[in-house]
Amino acid sequence: MAAQVSILKFGVSSPADTSPLKHVKVAGYNASKILAVIGKSEGNGCVNDFSRTLSTVVWEPLIPDSAVTIFSEGTEGVLSPHVTFIVREEEATGLLAAAGRTRVLEPHEIGTAEHATQIASSVREILERTNISRENVNLVLIKCPLLTSEKVGITKAASKAPVTEDTYESMAKSRYASAVGIAVALGEIGESYLDEAMRNETTWSSRASCSSGAELEDCHILIIASDPSSGNLRGISAHMDDAIDANVILRVLDQVKTEKGRVLQVFAKAEASKNGTIRGMRHTMNNDSDIHSTRHARAAMGGLIAGLVGDTQLYISGGAEGQGPPGGGSLAVFYTVAEPHSQKALV
Amino acid sequence: MAAQVSILKFGVSSPADTSPLKHVKVAGYNASKILAVIGKSEGNGCVNDFSRTLSTVVWEPLIPDSAVTIFSEGTEGVLSPHVTFIVREEEATGLLAAAGRTRVLEPHEIGTAEHATQIASSVREILERTNISRENVNLVLIKCPLLTSEKVGITKAASKAPVTEDTYESMAKSRYASAVGIAVALGEIGESYLDEAMRNETTWSSRASCSSGAELEDCHILIIASDPSSGNLRGISAHMDDAIDANVILRVLDQVKTEKGRVLQVFAKAEASKNGTIRGMRHTMNNDSDIHSTRHARAAMGGLIAGLVGDTQLYISGGAEGQGPPGGGSLAVFYTVAEPHSQKALV
Amino acid sequence: MAAQVSILKFGVSSPADTSPLKHVKVAGYNASKILAVIGKSEGNGCVNDFSRTLSTVVWEPLIPDSAVTIFSEGTEGVLSPHVTFIVREEEATGLLAAAGRTRVLEPHEIGTAEHATQIASSVREILERTNISRENVNLVLIKCPLLTSEKVGITKAASKAPVTEDTYESMAKSRYASAVGIAVALGEIGESYLDEAMRNETTWSSRASCSSGAELEDCHILIIASDPSSGNLRGISAHMDDAIDANVILRVLDQVKTEKGRVLQVFAKAEASKNGTIRGMRHTMNNDSDIHSTRHARAAMGGLIAGLVGDTQLYISGGAEGQGPPGGGSLAVFYTVAEPHSQKALV
Amino acid sequence: MAAQVSILKFGVSSPADTSPLKHVKVAGYNASKILAVIGKSEGNGCVNDFSRTLSTVVWEPLIPDSAVTIFSEGTEGVLSPHVTFIVREEEATGLLAAAGRTRVLEPHEIGTAEHATQIASSVREILERTNISRENVNLVLIKCPLLTSEKVGITKAASKAPVTEDTYESMAKSRYASAVGIAVALGEIGESYLDEAMRNETTWSSRASCSSGAELEDCHILIIASDPSSGNLRGISAHMDDAIDANVILRVLDQVKTEKGRVLQVFAKAEASKNGTIRGMRHTMNNDSDIHSTRHARAAMGGLIAGLVGDTQLYISGGAEGQGPPGGGSLAVFYTVAEPHSQKALV
Repeated sequence: MAAQVSILKFGVSSPADTSPLKHVKVAGYNASKILAVIGKSEGNGCVNDFSRTLSTVVWEPLIPDSAVTIFSEGTEGVLSPHVTFIVREEEATGLLAAAGRTRVLEPHEIGTAEHATQIASSVREILERTNISRENVNLVLIKCPLLTSEKVGITKAASKAPVTEDTYESMAKSRYASAVGIAVALGEIGESYLDEAMRNETTWSSRASCSSGAELEDCHILIIASDPSSGNLRGISAHMDDAIDANVILRVLDQVKTEKGRVLQVFAKAEASKNGTIRGMRHTMNNDSDIHSTRHARAAMGGLIAGLVGDTQLYISGGAEGQGPPGGGSLAVFYTVAEPHSQKALV
Repeated sequence: MAAQVSILKFGVSSPADTSPLKHVKVAGYNASKILAVIGKSEGNGCVNDFSRTLSTVVWEPLIPDSAVTIFSEGTEGVLSPHVTFIVREEEATGLLAAAGRTRVLEPHEIGTAEHATQIASSVREILERTNISRENVNLVLIKCPLLTSEKVGITKAASKAPVTEDTYESMAKSRYASAVGIAVALGEIGESYLDEAMRNETTWSSRASCSSGAELEDCHILIIASDPSSGNLRGISAHMDDAIDANVILRVLDQVKTEKGRVLQVFAKAEASKNGTIRGMRHTMNNDSDIHSTRHARAAMGGLIAGLVGDTQLYISGGAEGQGPPGGGSLAVFYTVAEPHSQKALV
Repeated sequence: MAAQVSILKFGVSSPADTSPLKHVKVAGYNASKILAVIGKSEGNGCVNDFSRTLSTVVWEPLIPDSAVTIFSEGTEGVLSPHVTFIVREEEATGLLAAAGRTRVLEPHEIGTAEHATQIASSVREILERTNISRENVNLVLIKCPLLTSEKVGITKAASKAPVTEDTYESMAKSRYASAVGIAVALGEIGESYLDEAMRNETTWSSRASCSSGAELEDCHILIIASDPSSGNLRGISAHMDDAIDANVILRVLDQVKTEKGRVLQVFAKAEASKNGTIRGMRHTMNNDSDIHSTRHARAAMGGLIAGLVGDTQLYISGGAEGQGPPGGGSLAVFYTVAEPHSQKALV
Repeated sequence: MAAQVSILKFGVSSPADTSPLKHVKVAGYNASKILAVIGKSEGNGCVNDFSRTLSTVVWEPLIPDSAVTIFSEGTEGVLSPHVTFIVREEEATGLLAAAGRTRVLEPHEIGTAEHATQIASSVREILERTNISRENVNLVLIKCPLLTSEKVGITKAASKAPVTEDTYESMAKSRYASAVGIAVALGEIGESYLDEAMRNETTWSSRASCSSGAELEDCHILIIASDPSSGNLRGISAHMDDAIDANVILRVLDQVKTEKGRVLQVFAKAEASKNGTIRGMRHTMNNDSDIHSTRHARAAMGGLIAGLVGDTQLYISGGAEGQGPPGGGSLAVFYTVAEPHSQKALV
């Protein structure tokens, strides 16, 4: 069975700061209740970001073996480093969650159809095991591995072809494969379409949020779903059509307001459109050789969402390949309402 | 007399792109009508940004000697490189503009009370000469010099003390001195307070927008004011209280909507709050040794304003010392209304 | 006929500094004598480096139409911005030079076999026209175009395939194609091998030095050769086997010392080895998402050569694809000797 | 008594890689023999470099409580991440070492005369305790704290003045105070001169190597000295006069060669000269707003020393304030000789 869960979040003073665990306990949950730790912390969020590894090293001994950690770095602009906890509740809350992992991916599998297939089968297996209906899934968060120079070397030495030799690009390939796997598992695309989706690089799910890091070899999976029959927590899935799509955010916030709710956390993916333009106007994120485009995109979308929500502790993650439409990104908002009533579909 | 003016803006393909001049001509204005060219183009907007010099070199031969150029670089995130023209009109438009320059500032004067005094007297002189009432001023745009390593060396060799030996910091000192000068000229602070304002570093004007660059020795000044008696162009001055102050922008846009108007251009200043927090939550802009805080701040605030306005060709400029409250920034919005009526003060 | 030439070099205070022209005149040469201006100036040397465009814009009006400009940016570490002039002499100097250009390359041709073919035929044509024997060539300097996001877009809109969509990578592809073209023209590889060389990406010439920039559409070519029969200027071609190959530099400097000579200028190419190691030890240049590997490599090799030569005004250029062995780079040293005698081959 | 020590070094695959401990054991030393772990690993080596914290977190549980860790990050250019161990020997080796710590420094003390005083007294205390003569000291390595935005805030909230509010600059202030403390302890300057040395910022020791990091509150101290009466390990202290001072390195290497020795490890400090020039030629390290000058300097000096020594696993540390002459840096070389004989002073 899936766990009924709540969402807590707390600021951190550095990637090594585990003091939020105290706050979790003060809030009435001991560590065994933690299903997932989802961190957003400083660091460039790129290949040589060891703050993810640091967070993993300090957090993993403190939480149950079954819990997953998803540390996505990069708090450019106004974004504030923080940790979000998904904790188990005894009573129905309106939100369900379940976690799991794929098998270890070999370096030559990262970013390939095999990677997507592993994600699809693991997500599907978790849904079946926990009896979560795929229609009710609001968000599938995945942390997946990337290729370092070392892994590229090992792969080539073994006469295998890495999906790319560009380590930064491998992050994008890995995210895309994960997103395609999610789309298959959620029935957004058919399984037979997986290979074609890997080729066209234009398939997307609005419920996927994937980030890649050097600190892991397998993929961590966290699924959050709505249980509209009960509780006072709600989730909305949507997507931004482009990087300045304020309207969808305003619509979601209107719905929260209508329900007299309060936003708990926003999960959004950001990316620089590959065609170099936004609504026909040129952007420069892809031509900046000093700052990677993922950093630009997080800063910009973070500024927009933080301004509208009035909160800077948001999970804005860069690199939206397959996660929302090209140039836009997936968006999931979780909130609490004063009086329980059922989740509305976002029009 | 001040010139009645219109505002035009066009995208550019690079800092060397002067093709917008053709569009200005197609719009019915020959080059002699240009009062100011205000560029926002790619580049890091910091000490070693030669794209400003490039823009200056290619544009200055094409415009009247009396016209000023204000190139502020840095189009981080979604921002789109473009050029804004202030052009003279024969008929009353509702907007007035006037331009001028200070004398050349010696390196040891940059960022000092003398710098502020020169700005104050030049702005005041322009207002008197053009008969613009200081109450009607919406925006004073200033481009001022900075200290390079070379200028620091020259100053010290002459046994004089530069305001700082840190070239990046000199940009901030120069902007602040310019802003204090504007505050004095607009009567926001008394002239006798100038020295104290230079010391406390907390004085601010909501109508100041200052940027510094290595490509000039004097200060370029452009004043834009409203002439509420006529025309269909309007200006609103306001300020953001912090870097995520969406409310003030929504209020301004509401007023524009009320007047059935359409936004022509937004001039906003952005900065990372010096105390390291936004609404009590930590930000990391001041601790990032890979990306300067001005770049972070432009990206974030650019994302917010672009999303709300639905336009990425905006003049978002980094470094808001003295230009709006600490951590926030000055904001001026110019727009066109269907039917002429007088400007409203923003409450 | 090829021109007999001398080499002059002068520091610059910025990419816009044309004051060296005065020094050239003081040295007895009027501008019509200038065959080439080879600049090394600050800037990141990557896609969004507009300092190259700036240098081109300020220098081109001052030099003959027939002269070529090759501005390679990036003076990381100890390197000092400067301009090298190749000027015509009436008397035999021991050095010959000739310049030319290819036709404009279409965006879809950049970095392809067609690009290499155009270089090969243009270099060969220049050698034939000027009667320079290819055995005597010390260095072929090429400046070639790159792909910007805009050019990628245009190419795809025309249903053509750009060699890559990664703008930074296009710089590498362009340099490699130029180097292969040089290798063909100098007879280092057979013309029939050109396609294979483009495929294997491991072919190299020790006399090629290629850099790419956004500021041009055709390729600029400058050939410098020795005329061992006369004069007191000499050239040596060699190559560094890896990025820390001090021995080859010490050997070249020994030869200069043996001839009681003095180094005038060094042209070296630098790159981060693609396999991620130097003499079996890991380097981190390819995994650094904050600083591009070309910047790292210029800084490191610049430090080594500057230390040994005792001069920081050196032409160290990043991106050595096809220019010297993988991980190393081509090296050409020009020097003056007290008493004329013939050039020695470097063993 | 001081420990007789040997020096071992091994490459690491990331800042989290503790596999060198296995190599230490294979070499015959168990962990209790480790006196110090001196790491040089990737990371920007600046304020937001969490790889130092990561290394500290993974290493400290594996080594004795009495051992010190000094992780200095930044392996720009050709430098290779590695860990150097100072291990105790039973027999006389020719090298002595001793470690210790200062008390915790309050944020407002960092970079002040009090900081220097604490270093001086701790170093002196260690020398006395271990009976090491200060004349025989080759190197004092110090890791000292820096100011983060948070610490600046705490200090100001307590109505105390931090030495600077610029977090990157605090690294330099901290290193300088540590170096002055070393100079006092080694008798290079008189104790009564300490305050003046803190003011003039031009005092230096050629045996100081200090780096600052966010991961500690006290200062870690490691002293390495020669015991010329015995053993086959040797140390030489020297200094580079500027960033391209190849001569001093060649002289040291000549001495090693004369003694038929082999270099074990080089400790060098690197910095960009504050006056913006090297031997009268302009450098651009202080004007680069994309890459901090410490990163430039490490890359350049690393390239030079690695080339001459033929090894990229070197301890080249940025920020040489007070550690060698301005623009240059301290230099210590440790090597093994075939047959024991006494250490020679470097002329």
